[in-house]
Amino acid sequence: MLVRVLECSLDPAMRRWMDADSYATAVGIDNPLPCTLIGRVMDSRCDGFNVGGLVTGRGTLSDFALLEADGYTRCIDAVGLPSLTCHLSVLGTSGLTAYNGLIKIGRPRAGETVLVSAASGSVGSLVGQIAKIHGCRVVGITGGAAKCRRLLDLYGFDAAIDRVGKHADVLAHEVRLACPQGIDVYFDNVGGPCLEAALGAINAKARIVLCGMIGEYNVVSPAPGPRNLWQLVAKAATMTGFLNREYLAHSDDELRQLRCWIDAGLIRWSEHVDAGLENFHGAFMRLFDGNHDGKLILRIAHDA
Amino acid sequence: MLVRVLECSLDPAMRRWMDADSYATAVGIDNPLPCTLIGRVMDSRCDGFNVGGLVTGRGTLSDFALLEADGYTRCIDAVGLPSLTCHLSVLGTSGLTAYNGLIKIGRPRAGETVLVSAASGSVGSLVGQIAKIHGCRVVGITGGAAKCRRLLDLYGFDAAIDRVGKHADVLAHEVRLACPQGIDVYFDNVGGPCLEAALGAINAKARIVLCGMIGEYNVVSPAPGPRNLWQLVAKAATMTGFLNREYLAHSDDELRQLRCWIDAGLIRWSEHVDAGLENFHGAFMRLFDGNHDGKLILRIAHDA
Repeated sequence: MLVRVLECSLDPAMRRWMDADSYATAVGIDNPLPCTLIGRVMDSRCDGFNVGGLVTGRGTLSDFALLEADGYTRCIDAVGLPSLTCHLSVLGTSGLTAYNGLIKIGRPRAGETVLVSAASGSVGSLVGQIAKIHGCRVVGITGGAAKCRRLLDLYGFDAAIDRVGKHADVLAHEVRLACPQGIDVYFDNVGGPCLEAALGAINAKARIVLCGMIGEYNVVSPAPGPRNLWQLVAKAATMTGFLNREYLAHSDDELRQLRCWIDAGLIRWSEHVDAGLENFHGAFMRLFDGNHDGKLILRIAHDA
Repeated sequence: MLVRVLECSLDPAMRRWMDADSYATAVGIDNPLPCTLIGRVMDSRCDGFNVGGLVTGRGTLSDFALLEADGYTRCIDAVGLPSLTCHLSVLGTSGLTAYNGLIKIGRPRAGETVLVSAASGSVGSLVGQIAKIHGCRVVGITGGAAKCRRLLDLYGFDAAIDRVGKHADVLAHEVRLACPQGIDVYFDNVGGPCLEAALGAINAKARIVLCGMIGEYNVVSPAPGPRNLWQLVAKAATMTGFLNREYLAHSDDELRQLRCWIDAGLIRWSEHVDAGLENFHGAFMRLFDGNHDGKLILRIAHDA
């Protein structure tokens, strides 16, 4: 189907797709950048997707895009939701990443301690809240005092750690202080010193969800990994890479659950919307300098 | 029960028990070193363990030791076996570590590629052979041309890689060449460059079993981890620490399976026996310089 692109999700994974050693074919210079988007159908040869309807799915960062009925694309509306863009945030890749990564790989149980890095981000903030719903103690690592406040006041985390300017050993010490019972689940969006700090405080049979390593996407030569990987052996713990796309298709049940929590007022989320395809670069860089709150979205066109 | 100690298993894990950050309470100076042993019962208050019987279990590296009926201790004999020490090698911790780590965490399927480090060691050589029994292509990393030959000629590996003197990047290249279909299971006894080399060639949904990191046990400050941990995310792969003691107790089924393979002539193993409690240090250091083949055992006393 041909769609008029309205809103594009800006995700850290898009940075990785520009590299040769990613999990997908590298995006070539002058080629459109793949992204998750919301659009209005202009023409369709796909059953169930009619001209004039709103859809979300995998397309390209462009004014118009071709989408397929590939299991990712689905019809949407904004009925009962504060905005259409919810389908890119809490009811989109961010919500599904948080839900699937935490529940299916992290497997949190009531009373356990869950640590999250990039905790005020679109995924991290949802991971923390879903873990709270499951009865866990939730600790977040984020950048700066303002984001720490958001974790505690807006998202209901039990504790917040500001990683800015801290050496790995200091961060590790603060993580141990904030997790006196040790860590059962660590949901990592960052890699680097945060991962090392978490490894230093894991409990027996801990589950580490590696969802991303945004701290390492723009380095010229790869940084060494944590010095304490031995802890995985000592604690008989597991570290599992999480690839969103393994779970995104056919996610009706998960979306229904997220919608229930939204309707019950149990989860909050934030969106930062920049406008204009020509402003992509500045908007995208917010992912790396942290200068935004919540889900980052680039608005390509206002809906007619 | 009080036992006269006959044979002691020398294991890499014993080195870790001397450190404060291990998974067990650190062994103090002048305290006996815990070990797995074979002994003859001298006195017993334990049901099912009679004076004069032979047992294997967890005791201490000493002339006499106290053992408990703790689920690890079991009565043994040498009927149908080439030697009593089989109960410390192929039918002891080495066999159970190989079996449980490979089968329960690695979950190999026929046609998959299994890579093993420290492959000519007591655990690695069994991992490779058990993987072959399961229909896998098996590649081993070991130290030196002679051990490479043993992998191919004695243990039936499909390919062998000599790691000696090779930079991480060279090792990674050789691993890729030896695993043209990629790696589905990596059984790691070493850590360091071998782990990084393996990560560079893993397939989607690969399982990495971290069984030990002998390459790092004697360093003063911990070495950085692999530079390519990102591959776990890119491949949605899993890395799991394996602690023998989680599986050792109540392992009748696993021992029966190993015994079946022995009787069918499907697995081979080697033992290196040094003698004399006073020769412990030299014997133990063989674990780290590689100057032995197969299971390392210290004979404390000849059986009367």
